[in-house]
Amino acid sequence: MSVPQLTDAERDAALAELEGWTLRGDGKAIECTFEFDDFVQAFGFMTRVAILAQSQDHHPEWFNVYNRVEITLTTHDAGGLSQRDVTLAKAIDHLL
Amino acid sequence: MSVPQLTDAERDAALAELEGWTLRGDGKAIECTFEFDDFVQAFGFMTRVAILAQSQDHHPEWFNVYNRVEITLTTHDAGGLSQRDVTLAKAIDHLL
Repeated sequence: MSVPQLTDAERDAALAELEGWTLRGDGKAIECTFEFDDFVQAFGFMTRVAILAQSQDHHPEWFNVYNRVEITLTTHDAGGLSQRDVTLAKAIDHLL
Repeated sequence: MSVPQLTDAERDAALAELEGWTLRGDGKAIECTFEFDDFVQAFGFMTRVAILAQSQDHHPEWFNVYNRVEITLTTHDAGGLSQRDVTLAKAIDHLL
């Protein structure tokens, strides 16, 4: 694995700083659901996230239906959660 | 339900015309997975689909991870598959 996983203490500290993100059941990812007024608002948000993700070379797993966007962040090169996920999650929160 | 569901015959005829779309197990949706070279290509495709969807006022349920886009089309107002899904699927295929 080329990227270090967060320790449990680092993970807990990161989650405490993030708004609305929760740890996935297996502890290997963080998840957040965002709701908007309509599809145009939701996809506009996704476009901003896409540009962030590309600039950080770290990409989400995400699902959209109409006004709802569900984002999962994990680091395959770490086999779990890394600082990359926390950095992207903070940048996403900062958009809103 | 304000939108008519496709009959079985209409559904089968539509599926025969679509490239790569399959009926979901419950028969109430069609699904297709698209693969691209990278995230920028995948999200570029999603942006084009988003504009199509908005112009048709019919929106996908979709999932993306990196270069892969999984699209599910169903019509909630029909409780299953309608002509709207077929029209959007054809328009999506036409993009590629």
